[in-house]
This record gives sequence, C-alpha cells and structure tokens, in this order.
Amino acid sequence: MPLIRFDLIEGRTDEQLKTLLDTAHDAMVEAFQVPQRDRYQIVTQHPANQMIIQDTGLGFERSKDVVVISVTSRPRTEEQKQNFYKLLVEKLGETCGIEPNDIMISIVSNTDADWSFGMGEAQFLTGKL
Amino acid sequence: MPLIRFDLIEGRTDEQLKTLLDTAHDAMVEAFQVPQRDRYQIVTQHPANQMIIQDTGLGFERSKDVVVISVTSRPRTEEQKQNFYKLLVEKLGETCGIEPNDIMISIVSNTDADWSFGMGEAQFLTGKL
Amino acid sequence: MPLIRFDLIEGRTDEQLKTLLDTAHDAMVEAFQVPQRDRYQIVTQHPANQMIIQDTGLGFERSKDVVVISVTSRPRTEEQKQNFYKLLVEKLGETCGIEPNDIMISIVSNTDADWSFGMGEAQFLTGKL
Repeated sequence: MPLIRFDLIEGRTDEQLKTLLDTAHDAMVEAFQVPQRDRYQIVTQHPANQMIIQDTGLGFERSKDVVVISVTSRPRTEEQKQNFYKLLVEKLGETCGIEPNDIMISIVSNTDADWSFGMGEAQFLTGKL
Repeated sequence: MPLIRFDLIEGRTDEQLKTLLDTAHDAMVEAFQVPQRDRYQIVTQHPANQMIIQDTGLGFERSKDVVVISVTSRPRTEEQKQNFYKLLVEKLGETCGIEPNDIMISIVSNTDADWSFGMGEAQFLTGKL
Repeated sequence: MPLIRFDLIEGRTDEQLKTLLDTAHDAMVEAFQVPQRDRYQIVTQHPANQMIIQDTGLGFERSKDVVVISVTSRPRTEEQKQNFYKLLVEKLGETCGIEPNDIMISIVSNTDADWSFGMGEAQFLTGKL
C-alpha cells in the first residue's frame, strides 16, 4: 500500500526510470514486507531550477541525479523505516549508480480507513486486505 | 478544505478533465458535507510509464484511465471516508465512464492549525471558518 | 527539514520562480527557526484549468498568480504555523507582488524517523541532526 512519489530532475531515459522504479520497489518489498504487487509509484519530473534540495548543513553535495522519495503508508516501525532507507540507497547505487548523497526520503503515515485500492471499497476495513 | 491531488495518465481532453473534477467535487461535498466552494483540486498528468499502479493482489486490472486521488483533510470518520470512496466510484462511472477498478484513493489527516486559505491567516483558528 | 511543494499555474519566468522560492525559504527560516540550508523545495506547474482553488465561502478572488504551498514537517506549534502563514504572505507580497488572497498553505506532520536526507540514514535518529 505505500504510495510512493518520486520527484526527479528531468533527463533520465525511460530505461533509467524503469530501473529506478523497479529497484525502489525491491527495497520496499524487502524492508516493509509488502506483497510483490503492492506497488504504487508516481513520478514527476522537474526542470533543474524547480527542485532545490539542500542539506541542513550535513555537507551533502547534490547532483542532477537527486531523487526525492515521498512515501505515504500505514504506520511502520522505526526499524522498518531505517531498513528501507538503507536498502534503498544500497540498491539504487548498485542498479542506477545514484550516489548515497543524492537520495532524500520522507514518510507520512495514515490508517486503515485511509485507503481504497479500487471498487470504492476500503479494503483494509472490509477484510479483503 | 480537503486538498485533492489527481494523478492521471496524460491524454484526457479539457472537457474530460472538467467533468472528472466536477464529479469528484460533487462526491466530496456529499460525503464530507463541505460547502460548495470548499474546492481545492490540483491535477498532475504523467506519461504512462511514470505511473505504476498495481493491486496488492486484489486482482484489479488497471487501464490508461487510472486515477489516483490523494486527499489531505482534517479528520473524517471512517463512515465519511467509506462513503466518499463509494460515491466517487459511482459518480465517476456515471459521468466519465471510469471503471471502479481504475480508481485508487488515499487520505492523509491534519489539524485546524494546518490550513491557511489566504491572507496569511489560519481560518480554522481565527473563527472565520 | 520541512519539504515544501509549490503548485503554480504555469507562466512565471525563471527569475520570478527564483524570487518566489527564495522568499518562501526566508519566511520558513524565520518562522520555524530552521538552519539556512534546511531547504527542500519542489515546484510543479500546471495549466490553469488543472488547478481549481476556491475559497470555502471566504470571499477570496484567486488570480493566475495563485500559489498552493504544501508543507511536510516534524511537529510545529500553532504559533509557529501562524507566524509562517503571516510572514509568507507579507514577504511574497513585497518581493513578488502576490496578493494575500492568492496564497493557500497546508501542513502535514510526521516524526523524527520519517526523514532521511541522504546516505540511507535517518539523521534525526542517529543524532547527526
């Protein structure tokens, strides 16, 4: 169920986008233990001057590869979240060559009643999920 | 007050978009009992390869008509939310011919202090709303 | 850390966008007392028919300059939020000539564990922030 938004600077090829999304999903499945088809990903690409991603003084350089990942999910433990951050950075480095300093993530939580995956039903309430 | 984001695959006409937004607003007004002008809707359209919306194993086929609706709202009851999902699917089917399996919705809640509709004021705190 | 999304109607120049983002950041730094480089801003521009921003009956006219600002942040006090709204409207008026009735803001809160600014770490948990 997590819904994941990817904000990117425009310029990636379709193949690069596919690898990025596939890889992010792998990290999600492993960290949050969700089903394989629990995949909800939306990409928005921006001109470089329309994503300003600095570092709160942490000393990270950001490149044009910068990825901002915004997750909406039912509650997850701190351990799950930290595992997700770690796996995502590892895997995106391996498959896409994205540097660890180019990956920013934030999560917002909601509840069972806040999801309808189709049919006008709240599947976490009806027991279908 | 709910702020509603619509993520769509590009290709709809302006007329189709208008009908979709009008209809979604009708469902919102009826389900959440908000005023007629409590309407805040933002559309972002995406190439088909940049919205991956699967089904958590529920068996839904998604088409190019798929609509992902993300709502930010002050708290609503489970009943209101379920009513919104149901009405939205019914009405979008009637007016736009969108199939029930193509409509996904998620909600995130916030509080009175989290809204300013203009003028730099928090209208739910000042008593103007 | 706040992540700020700006939804705008397309048509601003790069210079106008830059002034808008710089100014919004100044308001954020002053109201939330965040570090200067705690700056995370994403702009999405839309055709005019794809942002419908009304007024809940408050009587605001909206123009093509309308700005919808969506903030994700760790918890802030009501006072901080109200100060942010006020400063933002004052400053955007001064630097961009945006009218107070064209600025809508909403905030969603999350927690320490919900942020990774890079390196696959949750910096608010590890003590680096």
